[in-house]
Amino acid sequence: MKLKSPLKIAIAGLGTVGVGLIRQLNANGPLLEKRCGRKIQIVAVSARNRTQDRGIDIQKFKWFENPEMMAECADVEVIVELIGGQNGVAKSICEKSLATGKSVVTANKALLAHHGSFLANYAEKKNLSLAYEAAVAGGIPIIKTLREGLAGNKVISLYGILNGTSNYILTAMRNTSRVFNEVLAEAQSMGFAEADPSFDVDGIDSAHKLAILSSVSFGCKINFKDVYVEGIRYISPLDLILAEELGYRIKLLGIAHLKEEGIEQRVHPCMVSLDSPITHVEGVQNAVVVDCDGAGSTIYEGMGAGGGPTASALISDLVDIARNIKTPTFGLPINKLKSLPTVQMDKHVGAYYIRLMVVDKPGVFAEVASILRDEAVSMEAILQKTHAPGNLVPLVMTTHEVEEGALKRVLKKFEALETVLEKPRMIRIEPLN
Amino acid sequence: MKLKSPLKIAIAGLGTVGVGLIRQLNANGPLLEKRCGRKIQIVAVSARNRTQDRGIDIQKFKWFENPEMMAECADVEVIVELIGGQNGVAKSICEKSLATGKSVVTANKALLAHHGSFLANYAEKKNLSLAYEAAVAGGIPIIKTLREGLAGNKVISLYGILNGTSNYILTAMRNTSRVFNEVLAEAQSMGFAEADPSFDVDGIDSAHKLAILSSVSFGCKINFKDVYVEGIRYISPLDLILAEELGYRIKLLGIAHLKEEGIEQRVHPCMVSLDSPITHVEGVQNAVVVDCDGAGSTIYEGMGAGGGPTASALISDLVDIARNIKTPTFGLPINKLKSLPTVQMDKHVGAYYIRLMVVDKPGVFAEVASILRDEAVSMEAILQKTHAPGNLVPLVMTTHEVEEGALKRVLKKFEALETVLEKPRMIRIEPLN
Repeated sequence: MKLKSPLKIAIAGLGTVGVGLIRQLNANGPLLEKRCGRKIQIVAVSARNRTQDRGIDIQKFKWFENPEMMAECADVEVIVELIGGQNGVAKSICEKSLATGKSVVTANKALLAHHGSFLANYAEKKNLSLAYEAAVAGGIPIIKTLREGLAGNKVISLYGILNGTSNYILTAMRNTSRVFNEVLAEAQSMGFAEADPSFDVDGIDSAHKLAILSSVSFGCKINFKDVYVEGIRYISPLDLILAEELGYRIKLLGIAHLKEEGIEQRVHPCMVSLDSPITHVEGVQNAVVVDCDGAGSTIYEGMGAGGGPTASALISDLVDIARNIKTPTFGLPINKLKSLPTVQMDKHVGAYYIRLMVVDKPGVFAEVASILRDEAVSMEAILQKTHAPGNLVPLVMTTHEVEEGALKRVLKKFEALETVLEKPRMIRIEPLN
Repeated sequence: MKLKSPLKIAIAGLGTVGVGLIRQLNANGPLLEKRCGRKIQIVAVSARNRTQDRGIDIQKFKWFENPEMMAECADVEVIVELIGGQNGVAKSICEKSLATGKSVVTANKALLAHHGSFLANYAEKKNLSLAYEAAVAGGIPIIKTLREGLAGNKVISLYGILNGTSNYILTAMRNTSRVFNEVLAEAQSMGFAEADPSFDVDGIDSAHKLAILSSVSFGCKINFKDVYVEGIRYISPLDLILAEELGYRIKLLGIAHLKEEGIEQRVHPCMVSLDSPITHVEGVQNAVVVDCDGAGSTIYEGMGAGGGPTASALISDLVDIARNIKTPTFGLPINKLKSLPTVQMDKHVGAYYIRLMVVDKPGVFAEVASILRDEAVSMEAILQKTHAPGNLVPLVMTTHEVEEGALKRVLKKFEALETVLEKPRMIRIEPLN
């Protein structure tokens, strides 16, 4: 095989991921050259600060103060966008790059979730690649797996732990019985959570990723705005303990189901059985479980973030481009992607965990029971831990399967009870294979 | 995108896998056409028996009594080889297909393990595909993952449960405290084990797969003959119980390490910690754990065999060919694959579990201890369950890390002791992340 000319790339953004990418390309340069039949060569970089000590030499690369100008750089074939954010510079770099005939490799899930269809359409028209393995679950090559490895299958459903920060916080809360805010602050000081943690802990980051996974899995247009999203701020150490007593663990999952009525996409804390395969995925680990008509259930697990894992994903995209491998951005040509109706959460059918903080006095049970009866919600189990007459105690119940609409009416009535002194807590119980 | 002409394929072998492939292609035909931009069309089939009721219609395909003749069939572009066996018809079909300009898709790990380099070289010269996703771990797209998804990494090591039959037998023996032969017979009657179970339970099938995985992971030539292989026939219910008491579970693993001195490839029963990620992979499930320099440790789990999972793998290869995606057969062009020296098992360093059946009388411990001292093998733990003077009891010990050569000398001396009445049992303890 005769060597082809190097694949020349430019990198926009030199944070942890950008530096990780340069390190990994340096470390494995000769190996990558053998694998691709050509070099992958960094020719230009751009970042906010040129002189910052990053522990790597960036002198040999062309420097751009304005990353958007890299799109004009004639000898660059691929722009690696690592700036982030759903709009602004990140979006305009990608557009300009495609406009000037450059493929785009990005780790930007927000951008993809909001503008994925638009950008993919643009790339397809120009016969360029828009590659985003690094946008979902870092070191796990889940995009390639769905788009190529499982291409023989109809995907029925998928679920996953898509945000390492949230999973780390839930794990640490459970292990140390501390409250959310305390563990969040610790995670921030350790660099596992951003100064503004909202995207991570409020489920938005998971929802971005889920919307991307749904599109590739079900052959539909990305529909981020219809993802139902709840985060983990309201999870208490008490719920984590009670969950284990009931045989569950609480995980923030992204779940997507293809149903007859349409597509269900949701991100929220879930009670998962202690023996389900995702329960033992702890700390900053990510995992995705895919259920298919042919392959059955397959599981993928690894580091979801960090310089090394994200670089691994970025390079796999670059290797594809260097090897001249191109598949439709979301598994199907853009004009074949369906627009599927959304299954509303009120129509979701499932089992639920409910925790009430009640005054321990006679008659409480009777009130609770009659509300459940009136909405035809049947109880699976009930748990009242401490008996302390006149004091506030947790009254915990799990339900059989019921439509979420009915459950919400029950919660409203519970909240109105005089003996219920805090807002009722509800966590969905997720039956996973 | 304008539709290209169909990809015309011929299938040699209509057992569970061949029938599964036809079913899955039928079920997802229109979807696959959208994914590939062209149809995948079966034009010919061959099997031992034409009239057998397989629950599918094969009338519409051209029938070949002699599968090798399909290689001569002018309008076939790809031969799917599902006959099996390392030589004979399977090998000659593959050679003839490549000779006549047809790509080959195969599920045949024995063929690959023995003749993979030869066939890959042939395919490369003719610019054809030799695709074998289905040869390892069925529904898990592990070949694509290693060759493309993790292409940015140097793989340091990998291990896995690569044979569902053995894993099923070990799981069932542990759950029901029955002996190997009894559980094997049951597995055979349930169709989980072959009439001749040797390849599965003696570790040969796992070794075939491990040799393939090593080649793709480390960029070396397949070296099946140097894989160290032990099967599970000697595992007893007693060992399974004692393992759990010591905090371990027994799994038949394939393990490959790239070391400074060369490559270590081994298949044997292992004691793995109860909290290691592979411990909970039970029954016929397969799993592979890959440790890389960039992505870190990633885990892949799913069904390793059966019509659906194997069809999923075969179709992913066909989709690649239909999409005109071609990567070097073992991740590197043939002339770049290294020949790595083998690290011999005598040089393997690890911890060990040893079980002796001894006559329970004074002085036994002293004899055992002095043998260990003479070979400088230090004990980690010792366990003697029942005290029954004059009777045969298990004396179990685990060692600290030691070179296998020394351990084997210890075992030889143990065996020679008058108080040791059965052949000593040794199982390697595998520290897994």
